[in-house]
Amino acid sequence: MKATVLVRPKPGILDPEGQAVESSLRHLGFEVSDARVGRLVDIQVATDDETEALTQIERMCEQLLANPLIESYIVLLNGDAAGREQA
Amino acid sequence: MKATVLVRPKPGILDPEGQAVESSLRHLGFEVSDARVGRLVDIQVATDDETEALTQIERMCEQLLANPLIESYIVLLNGDAAGREQA
Repeated sequence: MKATVLVRPKPGILDPEGQAVESSLRHLGFEVSDARVGRLVDIQVATDDETEALTQIERMCEQLLANPLIESYIVLLNGDAAGREQA
Repeated sequence: MKATVLVRPKPGILDPEGQAVESSLRHLGFEVSDARVGRLVDIQVATDDETEALTQIERMCEQLLANPLIESYIVLLNGDAAGREQA
């Protein structure tokens, strides 16, 4: 099963990369605010059971993928992150 | 309107960070494959019109947020990236 983990800095945690992105976008003329930068991990797990996949991925997040002190994460299974695809 | 941009390395593009994540997860005992690491940008744009927001964000991606030679991106509007929230 394919999964996507989205890892974000928690509210209140300083995000210098987000500040730099926001500042650059404003300099380019875009009216934006509240930019925050995180990371995503796409991964194939060796199970087709949703509950088992979520359990495994939560353990991966706790052990490696996220720092629970300063980051939160969400897990999207299969096509949940499809959205509007761009080239 | 809140938006989330997911930026990923295109298929075939080398992703050393993804390889490192996969290798570390396997060392921890997880059966995983095809790990790819990208980044996400949460941003608030100054319009409530979906089409206008998408147009603006596509321009941001072309100018700053993604490198179209090696990265693809998708745009999620509002709650599309809500998924299963973790603490």
